[in-house]
Amino acid sequence: MPSHILVVGSLAYDDVDTPYDSRREVLGGAASYFSLAACLYAPVRLMGVVGDDFRASDLERLRAKGIDLAGVEHAKGRSFRWLGRYNHDLATAETINTDLGVFGDWVPTVPPAFVDSEFVFLANILPEIQRRMLEQVRSPRAIALDTMNYWIERRRDALADVMSRVDIVTVNEAEARQFCGTHNVLKAARQIHALGPRAVIIKRAEYGALLLTADRIFWTPAYPLDEVRDPTGAGDAFAGGLLGHLARAGKLDDGTLCRAVLHGTVCASFAVEQFSVDGIERADIRAVERRVGELEALVTV
Amino acid sequence: MPSHILVVGSLAYDDVDTPYDSRREVLGGAASYFSLAACLYAPVRLMGVVGDDFRASDLERLRAKGIDLAGVEHAKGRSFRWLGRYNHDLATAETINTDLGVFGDWVPTVPPAFVDSEFVFLANILPEIQRRMLEQVRSPRAIALDTMNYWIERRRDALADVMSRVDIVTVNEAEARQFCGTHNVLKAARQIHALGPRAVIIKRAEYGALLLTADRIFWTPAYPLDEVRDPTGAGDAFAGGLLGHLARAGKLDDGTLCRAVLHGTVCASFAVEQFSVDGIERADIRAVERRVGELEALVTV
Repeated sequence: MPSHILVVGSLAYDDVDTPYDSRREVLGGAASYFSLAACLYAPVRLMGVVGDDFRASDLERLRAKGIDLAGVEHAKGRSFRWLGRYNHDLATAETINTDLGVFGDWVPTVPPAFVDSEFVFLANILPEIQRRMLEQVRSPRAIALDTMNYWIERRRDALADVMSRVDIVTVNEAEARQFCGTHNVLKAARQIHALGPRAVIIKRAEYGALLLTADRIFWTPAYPLDEVRDPTGAGDAFAGGLLGHLARAGKLDDGTLCRAVLHGTVCASFAVEQFSVDGIERADIRAVERRVGELEALVTV
Repeated sequence: MPSHILVVGSLAYDDVDTPYDSRREVLGGAASYFSLAACLYAPVRLMGVVGDDFRASDLERLRAKGIDLAGVEHAKGRSFRWLGRYNHDLATAETINTDLGVFGDWVPTVPPAFVDSEFVFLANILPEIQRRMLEQVRSPRAIALDTMNYWIERRRDALADVMSRVDIVTVNEAEARQFCGTHNVLKAARQIHALGPRAVIIKRAEYGALLLTADRIFWTPAYPLDEVRDPTGAGDAFAGGLLGHLARAGKLDDGTLCRAVLHGTVCASFAVEQFSVDGIERADIRAVERRVGELEALVTV
């Protein structure tokens, strides 16, 4: 039996502006990006909430990939909407507007059919809800979480608490610096590792990702792309490739974690090549494996 | 006979401010940093100019490492002085003041004893002078150049011309973006490569370095350091390790270039660990080789 991957996170509509192009009401949300990456490796179960305005065709895009949507709640109101803008370097997103809609009041409960999920991703959401989720999963092999500056500023203690209870913390570089009060990313990774997780992964956008465990530091560059069109969802697609590879491998040793970071990096590269989830939706596992090989060659003398 | 390395560049006194410490009138300049790195690998010949105020003890520090100072001119006036400040991230230097002194009017001529140098580094200096230098060297195996934003803005055509005549262009990331008018570093590297050099190396500070040749893209992360004290001279120490390894290997194939980039990266790590040239001055080749091994392990699954 293959391991199952459970993701709890947002399903959203994004308005995205870059200096080169703009898109309106495109499928977004952490759970979308994550699922479309993770489903390349293992069966995915999705927990999320959508409003009246969510297009059936968008759920169908996920279902068509074999993603189990039994955990998607339908609530009265608007779906999560995000309006973001990137400047010419396509690095950090400026949030112009966030409308949480039905996501704002959502208190998820893991459906009975999902409690035996072996690999779990708690996407960026209120840390207290992340904690609640991890208590509801029966005997997970690995739980990973992501977070954002908003919770670092407002829910620091709750976030530190939930970080101490998971196996893998993924966080972007600016957030790691903010959370730890140091510019030095290695020190920041060690500080988060000291809270308890087995592995800390610092996502550095175009500069790749850094993995720290008790015995290992591993760094991969980003997959070099000629065009980045929309960085939205890169971190969630990264987590999808990461947990996907771990679930497929069924192991959590340092070597497997390093390789999982390569897979996460490559899934992120597919995500950012196109607007919305289009890039990661079109990727197949052979194309992913090919880029993983190229990524390894990139750093090999 | 081992290959000889020739460097043309500044010998300076720096005043350096970081948020953690400050130093006044410390030995600096591209040629100092470069020489102290390159001399770990092969005999180094230095061309530079100093004023009346240059301390004999500082020349002695270089001479003690076997660096041939027959190309150091002594001129009437003040030595090159630079006052720079780094903010908390220790990334980009803000130049508070530059006093070129005797370096400003210097028109160097390669001494007859130096014209047979096989490996040449044209440090950041007026592109027209870089061109003059490369015409004076008889039959070099490899010439590398560095530059800066000042020349990109003021001497763009002359810079493009000299880039087209050398074997290796080293440039930092921001300068590559500026010179090429694109944020995408891979595109920028290709654009510079199209001018003619065999290899382009983009230096990315704490994010490492990218090498591009006709057949190869190679990326190394920076050597992870717990403390960066003074980033001054990192790029010149990098070039020293790079040309040092090439001169020692006596080859210029892609594999040797990749390994040379690792050596450059490690020499830069020693340079930034201490103020002024203290870090690279104290490094020995065994410590460099050890870090090169660690750097390779860092990216190996």
